[in-house]
Order: sequence, then C-alpha cells, then structure tokens
Amino acid sequence: MKIYSKYIENAVDQISSLPGIGKRTALRLVIELLKRSNEEIEDFSNSFVLMKENIKKCQICHNISDTDICPICSDKNRDQNLICVVEDIRDILAIEATQSYKGVYHVLDGIISPMDGIGPKDLNINSLIERAKNESVKEIIFALSATMEGDTTNFYLYRKIKDLNIEISSLSRGVSVGSELQYADEITLSRSLLNRQPFVI
Amino acid sequence: MKIYSKYIENAVDQISSLPGIGKRTALRLVIELLKRSNEEIEDFSNSFVLMKENIKKCQICHNISDTDICPICSDKNRDQNLICVVEDIRDILAIEATQSYKGVYHVLDGIISPMDGIGPKDLNINSLIERAKNESVKEIIFALSATMEGDTTNFYLYRKIKDLNIEISSLSRGVSVGSELQYADEITLSRSLLNRQPFVI
Repeated sequence: MKIYSKYIENAVDQISSLPGIGKRTALRLVIELLKRSNEEIEDFSNSFVLMKENIKKCQICHNISDTDICPICSDKNRDQNLICVVEDIRDILAIEATQSYKGVYHVLDGIISPMDGIGPKDLNINSLIERAKNESVKEIIFALSATMEGDTTNFYLYRKIKDLNIEISSLSRGVSVGSELQYADEITLSRSLLNRQPFVI
Repeated sequence: MKIYSKYIENAVDQISSLPGIGKRTALRLVIELLKRSNEEIEDFSNSFVLMKENIKKCQICHNISDTDICPICSDKNRDQNLICVVEDIRDILAIEATQSYKGVYHVLDGIISPMDGIGPKDLNINSLIERAKNESVKEIIFALSATMEGDTTNFYLYRKIKDLNIEISSLSRGVSVGSELQYADEITLSRSLLNRQPFVI
C-alpha cells in the first residue's frame, strides 16, 4: 500500500503497531483523525503522554492507579486477607463487574509463557510470595486464563506457596452459564463432570 | 467499566472515540501502550500532531499529499485528461493497487448523504466542475460506492456535467470475479445480465 504522504504513513505505522490493528484499519482511523480540529488532535496525542507520565502501579497489588496505593487495597471494607491473583488490570475489571468479590487482588502483569520469552522473573511473583508470608492472609485464589500458560503459572505459584499455611483455590471450570451442553468442548465437559456439585434447589 | 485511573480512562476515551473501536478494545490497546518506553509513547503521540500540522491537500485533486500538487497530478506519464471521481484517499489506494489505471483522480471527500447531513456543498464538487470545464478533459469516470448514497452523488454530478462535451462513465457492476453465481444478489445479477458483454476468447 503506497500512501502519498510520509506523515500519514508514519501515523498509520504507529497505529498499526498496536495489536490486532492492520494497515487498512489504521488508515481508516487516520483519515478519521484528519477530519478533526488541531485542538482535538492535541488532546488525542496528549492523552497518551499524560498517561505514561502520571500512571502509577499500586505498591501492594501492582494494579494501575493514580495513587501509590490503589483504591481497592486502601478500601477498609474489603477483605485484605483474601488475595485473587490475576494476569492484568482487565481481569480486575471483569471480576469487579460481577460485584461478587470483596477481597483484594495481585496483578502478575502477564503469565509464564516460554514461547514469548516470559519467565517467572518477568512477573510480579516475588511480591506475591512476600504478601503470602504475612500470617493474616487466609486464602489465595488463582484466577488466570484457562490456557496452557495459565495452568503452568498456577502450578509454579502453587509450588512456591504450598508450604505456607494458606488455602489455595482456583476458579472453577465448567460449562458456561447459558450455553448448550452439546456445544461444550470435551475437556470442559469432563472437568465439569469431575467437579460436579451437590444439587441445591 | 470503572477504571482506577483517570489518565487511563482519558486515553481509553480518546481511542474509543475512533470509529469501530469500543471501550474494551481501547483498554486492551492502552494496556499495550503502557508497556512501551517514554520515547516510544512520544513518537506515537507526535505522529498525529505532525500529520495534522504538515498534511496538505493537492490543489488540483484534493488527494492527501506532502506537496501542493500530489505525485499523481504532477506525473507527466499519466493522462491528465481522464479524471476518476472517488470518495476518499482509500479508493485511490485501491485503484492504484490494480495498476490498471493511468489517469488522474478527483477526491470528493465524502458522498452526498442527507442522513448524515452531508450535502453537495460539503464536497469538492465545484472544483470538479471547474476541472471538467477545461476543454482538454475527455472523460470523467464515476468510481463511487455502489450504494444509495453513491448513486445519488453520481446522479447529482451527472446533471452538473452532462452539458459539457465530456464522456461520462461509471464502474461496471456485475458478479465479482471468482465468486459463485448462486451467491450473487438479485440486483447485481440482473445488472450483470443487462450489461452483458460480447464473449471474447
């Protein structure tokens, strides 16, 4: 695709460097941006620089925050001794949206993935172990993706934590609520058979 | 979706203001951006400001360009008397990619769309008529989308140009090359029957 302006080409390259956005989509977005006023473009651009300059990570759970301690870790109404381990901030948002969790989080900032060159040292694992050593902590919930990488990370964390006197749990796997049985994959179905629950009315 | 940082929220709002990008996708992109260095973020941001500050429109055809006259209009190997009317720069890129057009273009910067409040005055129609009045111009090709809006615009342009002594043509409609007949819609199929061509071996 030959574009007749190096400025457009540069902007297209920048946008298409984001995951999941190809050159064609990027060009469509750039053409849309070109229709905006100078001031709007300034606001658009500045939002990223401001974010990068001002963003902090919570010193306890590594959640993204504008303060040193995030609103969740500093919330006295939440159970600070129940820690849910997640991959990134989006998982926190997903769990918070359920409104059914009142503990705190620990953000790993990724999962162990040898294929992508991500090992335990690249993740916030040491700080999790330090938190787990605090005797008041009662339970740690593994809430990582149900993938090979998620399972690997779960197992690694389990070995690091198992000797501390803490309950370790992970999200239940099973047939999604609202989905038809015939469309569930074999592994999910066999896991949901194995982990069957007493029937409650 | 409650995000725990107003900076992130602002960046997400900016990205999701682009067409076709929702809040979730925007958040994914913003998290990706956060992993980059300060310098990379500066480059990312600056690309849009630089583009907005430096971009020009070709004074002849309204194509986007870094110069006053775009590379196509200033190319002496192209037929300057054959003008292809398109909606925006992406259509130029699509036609150029075929390598089968050697004329020049005229970018309307949109099509007539009363639903979106876009009338003839919002488009580069007057400059097209001025170009068409030049006696050396031989043919104008309408290459707008095969939609209601495209047809409306074609008809409007036709009425403005028809009295000048210029050949007016439009892209042929028909069954796509490589597609199966049974999947063609009725209108396309009836147009391709009406416009049937002498069979050539």
